[in-house]
Amino acid sequence: MAREIKYGMVGGSIYAFIGEVHRKALAFDTRAELVAGCFSNVESENIDTAKAYGVSAERTYKDYKEMAAAEAKRADKLDFVSICTPNFLHYEVAKEFLLAGINVVCEKPLCFAVEEAEELEKLAKEKDLIFAVTYAYTGYVMPKVMKEMIANGKIGKIAAIIAEYAQDWLIDELSPEKQGQTKNLSVWRTDPKFSGISNCVGDIGTHAENMIHYLTGLKMKRLMATTDNYGHALDLNANIIAEYEGGVRGQIWCSQIAAGRMNGLVVKIYGSEGSLEWEQHFPDYVKYTPRGKATEILSKRNSYITEAAHAAARIPSGHPEGYYVAFANTYRNILNAVAKKKAGEKLTDKDLDFPKVSDGVNGVKFVHAVIESSKSDGAWVSLD
Amino acid sequence: MAREIKYGMVGGSIYAFIGEVHRKALAFDTRAELVAGCFSNVESENIDTAKAYGVSAERTYKDYKEMAAAEAKRADKLDFVSICTPNFLHYEVAKEFLLAGINVVCEKPLCFAVEEAEELEKLAKEKDLIFAVTYAYTGYVMPKVMKEMIANGKIGKIAAIIAEYAQDWLIDELSPEKQGQTKNLSVWRTDPKFSGISNCVGDIGTHAENMIHYLTGLKMKRLMATTDNYGHALDLNANIIAEYEGGVRGQIWCSQIAAGRMNGLVVKIYGSEGSLEWEQHFPDYVKYTPRGKATEILSKRNSYITEAAHAAARIPSGHPEGYYVAFANTYRNILNAVAKKKAGEKLTDKDLDFPKVSDGVNGVKFVHAVIESSKSDGAWVSLD
Amino acid sequence: MAREIKYGMVGGSIYAFIGEVHRKALAFDTRAELVAGCFSNVESENIDTAKAYGVSAERTYKDYKEMAAAEAKRADKLDFVSICTPNFLHYEVAKEFLLAGINVVCEKPLCFAVEEAEELEKLAKEKDLIFAVTYAYTGYVMPKVMKEMIANGKIGKIAAIIAEYAQDWLIDELSPEKQGQTKNLSVWRTDPKFSGISNCVGDIGTHAENMIHYLTGLKMKRLMATTDNYGHALDLNANIIAEYEGGVRGQIWCSQIAAGRMNGLVVKIYGSEGSLEWEQHFPDYVKYTPRGKATEILSKRNSYITEAAHAAARIPSGHPEGYYVAFANTYRNILNAVAKKKAGEKLTDKDLDFPKVSDGVNGVKFVHAVIESSKSDGAWVSLD
Amino acid sequence: MAREIKYGMVGGSIYAFIGEVHRKALAFDTRAELVAGCFSNVESENIDTAKAYGVSAERTYKDYKEMAAAEAKRADKLDFVSICTPNFLHYEVAKEFLLAGINVVCEKPLCFAVEEAEELEKLAKEKDLIFAVTYAYTGYVMPKVMKEMIANGKIGKIAAIIAEYAQDWLIDELSPEKQGQTKNLSVWRTDPKFSGISNCVGDIGTHAENMIHYLTGLKMKRLMATTDNYGHALDLNANIIAEYEGGVRGQIWCSQIAAGRMNGLVVKIYGSEGSLEWEQHFPDYVKYTPRGKATEILSKRNSYITEAAHAAARIPSGHPEGYYVAFANTYRNILNAVAKKKAGEKLTDKDLDFPKVSDGVNGVKFVHAVIESSKSDGAWVSLD
Repeated sequence: MAREIKYGMVGGSIYAFIGEVHRKALAFDTRAELVAGCFSNVESENIDTAKAYGVSAERTYKDYKEMAAAEAKRADKLDFVSICTPNFLHYEVAKEFLLAGINVVCEKPLCFAVEEAEELEKLAKEKDLIFAVTYAYTGYVMPKVMKEMIANGKIGKIAAIIAEYAQDWLIDELSPEKQGQTKNLSVWRTDPKFSGISNCVGDIGTHAENMIHYLTGLKMKRLMATTDNYGHALDLNANIIAEYEGGVRGQIWCSQIAAGRMNGLVVKIYGSEGSLEWEQHFPDYVKYTPRGKATEILSKRNSYITEAAHAAARIPSGHPEGYYVAFANTYRNILNAVAKKKAGEKLTDKDLDFPKVSDGVNGVKFVHAVIESSKSDGAWVSLD
Repeated sequence: MAREIKYGMVGGSIYAFIGEVHRKALAFDTRAELVAGCFSNVESENIDTAKAYGVSAERTYKDYKEMAAAEAKRADKLDFVSICTPNFLHYEVAKEFLLAGINVVCEKPLCFAVEEAEELEKLAKEKDLIFAVTYAYTGYVMPKVMKEMIANGKIGKIAAIIAEYAQDWLIDELSPEKQGQTKNLSVWRTDPKFSGISNCVGDIGTHAENMIHYLTGLKMKRLMATTDNYGHALDLNANIIAEYEGGVRGQIWCSQIAAGRMNGLVVKIYGSEGSLEWEQHFPDYVKYTPRGKATEILSKRNSYITEAAHAAARIPSGHPEGYYVAFANTYRNILNAVAKKKAGEKLTDKDLDFPKVSDGVNGVKFVHAVIESSKSDGAWVSLD
Repeated sequence: MAREIKYGMVGGSIYAFIGEVHRKALAFDTRAELVAGCFSNVESENIDTAKAYGVSAERTYKDYKEMAAAEAKRADKLDFVSICTPNFLHYEVAKEFLLAGINVVCEKPLCFAVEEAEELEKLAKEKDLIFAVTYAYTGYVMPKVMKEMIANGKIGKIAAIIAEYAQDWLIDELSPEKQGQTKNLSVWRTDPKFSGISNCVGDIGTHAENMIHYLTGLKMKRLMATTDNYGHALDLNANIIAEYEGGVRGQIWCSQIAAGRMNGLVVKIYGSEGSLEWEQHFPDYVKYTPRGKATEILSKRNSYITEAAHAAARIPSGHPEGYYVAFANTYRNILNAVAKKKAGEKLTDKDLDFPKVSDGVNGVKFVHAVIESSKSDGAWVSLD
Repeated sequence: MAREIKYGMVGGSIYAFIGEVHRKALAFDTRAELVAGCFSNVESENIDTAKAYGVSAERTYKDYKEMAAAEAKRADKLDFVSICTPNFLHYEVAKEFLLAGINVVCEKPLCFAVEEAEELEKLAKEKDLIFAVTYAYTGYVMPKVMKEMIANGKIGKIAAIIAEYAQDWLIDELSPEKQGQTKNLSVWRTDPKFSGISNCVGDIGTHAENMIHYLTGLKMKRLMATTDNYGHALDLNANIIAEYEGGVRGQIWCSQIAAGRMNGLVVKIYGSEGSLEWEQHFPDYVKYTPRGKATEILSKRNSYITEAAHAAARIPSGHPEGYYVAFANTYRNILNAVAKKKAGEKLTDKDLDFPKVSDGVNGVKFVHAVIESSKSDGAWVSLD
């Protein structure tokens, strides 16, 4: 089943969560083949994963540096590598593959330090490599509809942006006697050594920031914020007022202690000619209210949806597409870009409809700004 | 149809909106009778209103000062007066009736200046008079359920408070060419002379602030805010981060330009043991999520509701009660208090389950703090 | 407070539920005055109710026959009587007042026997009297919007009608050991002597049937049905397939044992050009889907609503109006008709936008047809 | 990438819809490999599909009979075949592979004639082969939760079952001048030659019937129904009253002309101890109301969900799983059964948690009963 595009993976053993999501998403479009990997530093897990996906022993590496070096030398080297390691390793792994001349797809957050993020961005540019960052929620069909509607002036001039991303899986951390006992609470989620300077803002707040940018194209200029650690080393909740270019303002709330909220990314964009409201729990629907008219419930692939968005949907309206499809859509656009580049074609903006290293940089800056503002008792912090 | 409690009204002609709401609300419990009024400075409207409600010519006054003076002297003087005038008159009318020794029910906002608000509060205390302010949304049954649940520890220690009040009736004001043409846009809604220092925050932001205080009992300590005037003299949108006693933090967003939002007061309270979420558009329901359990949809008068809350409902579950009933419930408690006081009984806290002059003072302080913070580029402003 | 229209009441003591709803609803429009009554056969309750509403001792009657006779002779006789007695008395009381030449407003169901219903209809016609039956749900604003939209062809030719009315207050009756212990379960709700031939279909199924007729104007021609008694004398659940004029077909499900359903009247009308879906729990909203377009959420008093419907709303969109207002709207139209008739004006169809004796007759026929079909193992039964 | 289970496919070219869904669903669990196929009678499409999936030329067949014969002889013959042809071919293809001793997975409907369905069932039994029918909606996590809850008595004795499956994609067929112009309207969808005796009931009504059986285990005993063809050869809408074993009754409505309904499969089960309500548009949630308590919103993988159901979820709560995952879950269980059988292990009921040939037989019987009842003017038709 030799396929057009060959990819490798660092991290992402079959015993972890996110690597499987990447591979299943890639399987939606039968263009890419997993041919190399360094899936785990646990040897047996590395080998099991290679076997499950038919990766040859020769290209199953014990070390990602060895992998980058070896692949760089091959005539049939990787078309791209997907990085699914714990967050604190993203920077060094991505850098290694960029230096090896290989396109990179990296899980978010891109890295922890602004300088590192900017270094990766610069390096990708110098090497003329594709560098995607998998903020996967922008892969859903309806955000694509919203982006297109906003660009086409359907809601006029943007006046207010309200977003939230609320979860409850760390609620037990509010009770001193239960601290650290949350099921599935990895140490690298709450330990600064492994999580960088932020937990909640870095993990989910950035998704809200990224989605706002994706939908509106507006650059965030400055923000003021408070964070709540509730006695922990890192934040579990944050309140943010953000100012975007053109003086547009809005709020972002993110939380991991909000009982009943599972994965509640909600984005509401209000403009002079209408509004758009979207919730990740029900990704196939958007509330659209044209000024002075009734609220409409837009859904994917219906005739009233724009052509481009229509194309993004894979199954008929009324069949929920879900998270894997969002991920698959992101990869579909990445694969298109990788294939075009491989064929020596020039990439246009339209070819780059996926989160890129610049989005990763924005995310890292955003996290730093929130934490800095919080430490300065809510003072404005610029993101320029 | 002589009834136990006699009341008068200033403002509230039958040709205006809010006076009718007060009278219909009072009609729900057959205890109070309208016997005096100064309903309008338009003579014919004053007389028409008096006739419609059977108010005698003798007690139909041309001037509220004359009314206060005349009623003060009567043996059968008013048990209370309801003030439904435009906002900028609340202070002077309320003061006049307090001085005349008559209990006061006043529309919100109480007044414009903090000093005036505090003066009214002081005067009511000195004169030992009941002074209610009709923030009517706290009269719905489910906020009463929520208040009781929070007091009983059902959601544990409060950790985050997120609220919004969004409308769209001023959206046309975002378009320079349409400014001032909004249907029903009274000049006293957007002119500082008649609206005081704020439009949106004063009109609806205070409802969010009041509801949070009603539900949680928490005192707001300080806030930082931005307001958006979009070229107008007064605010049409505001973003607020608030800090309450005990270090609890949260956000409030209020807006009059949010397409599709009609009267969207939403309050979400998250605690260590669960959460409560309520939306004014669907007032008979509350989302309650106990920590680690499924979200429950609570509804009025069901057996799983607390006894006190059960008592507040008037009709069986599944029959929507609506805005008039919220207003009527507020008045029911006011009438109880007025009757008890008249009978010489001592009022307990339980008898005072309605918004009072202290709530009005909080509201005025809140508005001032938001506007002051906004003018100071979002600096923290204390409410103490 | 002498008002234009004088009314009396039979049944409806202040200690019962529905009489209070009628009086509160009538208080919304300050046109009618309660001047006579026979509120209860318990003397103290009769007197208490009279006192609460200022009804004179002279016009507080011990017996409804005496009341009809006495009122018939007065120069200032009642403009109409509201009948709020238990259902099994509706027929005889209504007949007495019609014979006395007094307009009648009667609670639903009109009566138990088809012959009695038709007799009342004939009598009202002969005497040229207004006879309203308070199926109150048609008084909500949005059903009025729907009716107007359907009449104006907004959904084209009707193709399917799906309705349900589900409650759960009798669920305990499913458990043999709990039978008869349901809280608030009046004997006259489940005893054929007091309830006639049906419990569930008569109590709530008729509301669905009436709403369908109100909205579409279609006459039901025949039906086939099963009913479930679960071991009781009367039905607690029913499944109905109905055929309307023009060959339109649909389903009705009604139940009093459906856990979680409080007062779930849902009506969905599908036509060749679009559809309308409405749920009583959220009465201020209608889902409208024009063919091939997005579903719209219509709400009362917005600019996109028809003028006539706009007029029916009392408060701005976003303020829930609720059950009392639905009732008040029904009475508003009844009062208009009564006043016009009193003034000697001719009533047009537009003046009769409230459920009438013909609706009551339809309801009785419908109940009989369902029960007859059920007894014939689901055979078609004609309603002609 | 040699995998444990080898499968083939008949129909399902990459240019058609459903074959891709099957293959993507199978890719979720890395156990099965596509090794043979007869994907299309258009040669180029057959070859393109084979190439896309790496199927060897040797095992790319021009004819399904040739394929069955050739595979039957191989030492490494197929572990199962997936049949994705147009419906009218299901019977003959399935029969051929059963005779060749190969396990079968067949799209629904199984076939058109009851005799054929029963023949396939008998044949599968005789040959001791696995025969799955892909009614995929039962693969969603929450129906599995519901099934388990019902089996465990959480809603007590079932008292009423209400289901509907409504779409709007054939609404234009209501307008005589637009007939036959519906986008994507295949001739084999509405032509009896290719669709058998029914369009709407066969296409979607059976999904409702199958889901009810899956959830409750109840056998449908008899039904009475009306169908609406609106001038066409086959049905576009149907109303059904069904009676299940134990005297339980309920309704099913299915329609392809209901504006605004995209893929609205809704199932509501009411019992003596509670109820469960589920909607395919929002498959990750179930409304559960225990008798006399608040309605709970259950969601996949939360701690309050049963262990077995928890195991069925693939990603954390709040990440929508969607239609592909439902399909993948069905295939996961099929693959488990195929692997166990291959290993010579005995299959238990628990291993067979997927729709089987018996479900297919039920579906065909159901369709015939509905059409027969409709032709007999709604007379009861037995399904025994």
